[in-house]
Amino acid sequence: MNEEKVSQYIKNIDGELWLVEDDRDNLKVSYRIKEIIFTAQSPFQHIMVLDTYDFGRMLVLDGVVQSTEKDGYIYNEMIAHVPLHIHPHPKKVLIIGGGDCGAAREVIKYKHVEELYFCEIDELVVRASKEHLTGVSAGLDDQRVHYLFADGIQYMKEHKNEFDIIIVDSSDPVGPATELFEFDFYKNVFEALKDDGLMVCQSESPFFYRETMDNTYHSLNRLFGHVKQYTAVVPTYPGGLWSFTLASKKYQAFIQPDYEKTTKYFNEEILHASFALPEFMATDKK
Amino acid sequence: MNEEKVSQYIKNIDGELWLVEDDRDNLKVSYRIKEIIFTAQSPFQHIMVLDTYDFGRMLVLDGVVQSTEKDGYIYNEMIAHVPLHIHPHPKKVLIIGGGDCGAAREVIKYKHVEELYFCEIDELVVRASKEHLTGVSAGLDDQRVHYLFADGIQYMKEHKNEFDIIIVDSSDPVGPATELFEFDFYKNVFEALKDDGLMVCQSESPFFYRETMDNTYHSLNRLFGHVKQYTAVVPTYPGGLWSFTLASKKYQAFIQPDYEKTTKYFNEEILHASFALPEFMATDKK
Repeated sequence: MNEEKVSQYIKNIDGELWLVEDDRDNLKVSYRIKEIIFTAQSPFQHIMVLDTYDFGRMLVLDGVVQSTEKDGYIYNEMIAHVPLHIHPHPKKVLIIGGGDCGAAREVIKYKHVEELYFCEIDELVVRASKEHLTGVSAGLDDQRVHYLFADGIQYMKEHKNEFDIIIVDSSDPVGPATELFEFDFYKNVFEALKDDGLMVCQSESPFFYRETMDNTYHSLNRLFGHVKQYTAVVPTYPGGLWSFTLASKKYQAFIQPDYEKTTKYFNEEILHASFALPEFMATDKK
Repeated sequence: MNEEKVSQYIKNIDGELWLVEDDRDNLKVSYRIKEIIFTAQSPFQHIMVLDTYDFGRMLVLDGVVQSTEKDGYIYNEMIAHVPLHIHPHPKKVLIIGGGDCGAAREVIKYKHVEELYFCEIDELVVRASKEHLTGVSAGLDDQRVHYLFADGIQYMKEHKNEFDIIIVDSSDPVGPATELFEFDFYKNVFEALKDDGLMVCQSESPFFYRETMDNTYHSLNRLFGHVKQYTAVVPTYPGGLWSFTLASKKYQAFIQPDYEKTTKYFNEEILHASFALPEFMATDKK
């Protein structure tokens, strides 16, 4: 076998290009690449858009797969449509993170959302996704979207009683995203929401980051009246099964909102089913 | 990097042992190994039991992960408990395949099952699992279990109107398992079932083997009055999301049977939720 390092994250193995995701000590996933579409170092992280054989185009930050054309819609639909099927009249929505633009793309399918604030720290991720990852971002061209390119942690400290829904679409709790998993941040999110507001965040893998998942639940439970977890299957995330945590001040019931029904994973049956937790996830919540 | 081949499937990379699952062309998963517990070549396949860092002990056939202590219960619970929550009085159950003994372990949790026939072609897989993979097999020591160690395809040709439930717990449709995905085999399964019998089979990944999943559905739909697909998440299977196909001559409704409730994934909410299919799976079934 002839192996050569093409860049920090890409190897040439016997003439084939491979991304080796090796942030975990004991489990590595390798994706065969057709072409390196975009690569850059931003002030915050290393950014790549790759064209892969099995997953189409793929956004990779610091060597970790974030979103792909083949399965990115699952995560993005599930973090966006679930809260929008609970809040009955959201006008002002905030997304923190979500640089692939996929969650924002889903939110704007609801015509009654009047303003979508999009607070992503790294402008270059958004630019790369809008230009090179159109299968996920769809170019995201809508006049209701206000781009902020700011630090979500700082932004949350400065806003009170303002949003109907806040979607925390963070990367893993390492490096810049660590604070997005802490109680102080959630407290500021709580305060930035209106009296009937609700929030959702990704809360990591029930298999590999159980502690993060549980901590998220317990932190939000200290603040909000109604906290529930739900799951979706994201093939390119370790373990496949992924958890989300929904925290609401007032609304709990599912509604049937009017929206552009062009989803590929989400539907009403999945909405209900996603809150059914496997026994190993459910036991300590009972 | 210093890399050395320890065996056909195991590499020593910089002093660490790794199983590299490379049966797919464009996606490879590598598992770090603590210890090689068992390795043998049977008349049918290469068999290993490995102790891994992330997934505990692991059964590997021809280099492909079949079952692990960490997540094997998910697949086994979902292939066993779902049919047993539909057939109201199964006395005679047959498992074809399922050499890790995990599905059989779940079936015997139902005391009203009087006989469990276990038709696995490779006796050595069963012996290795009973001895070295007790986290999955639990040793499988129950007087109702009749071991056959025979070819499931041939066995199905020779039995008519005999079983209440048949569980087809096969490996992937390559090599010896190919025929277990063909119409002629399903026809024989149909005939081996009693007039109110039902069957379930694993029908591969909705992401990576969509054609197999759809073919299974359509083949069984030609034979049985009621065919439905359901899903579970198995972290060590490619894509995480896995499909099962249930085909019944008579019974459709869920029942609440009496059984030993020691499951780790399955519960009544999951039973219902598992039949909610993501939009991309559901559309062509509507």
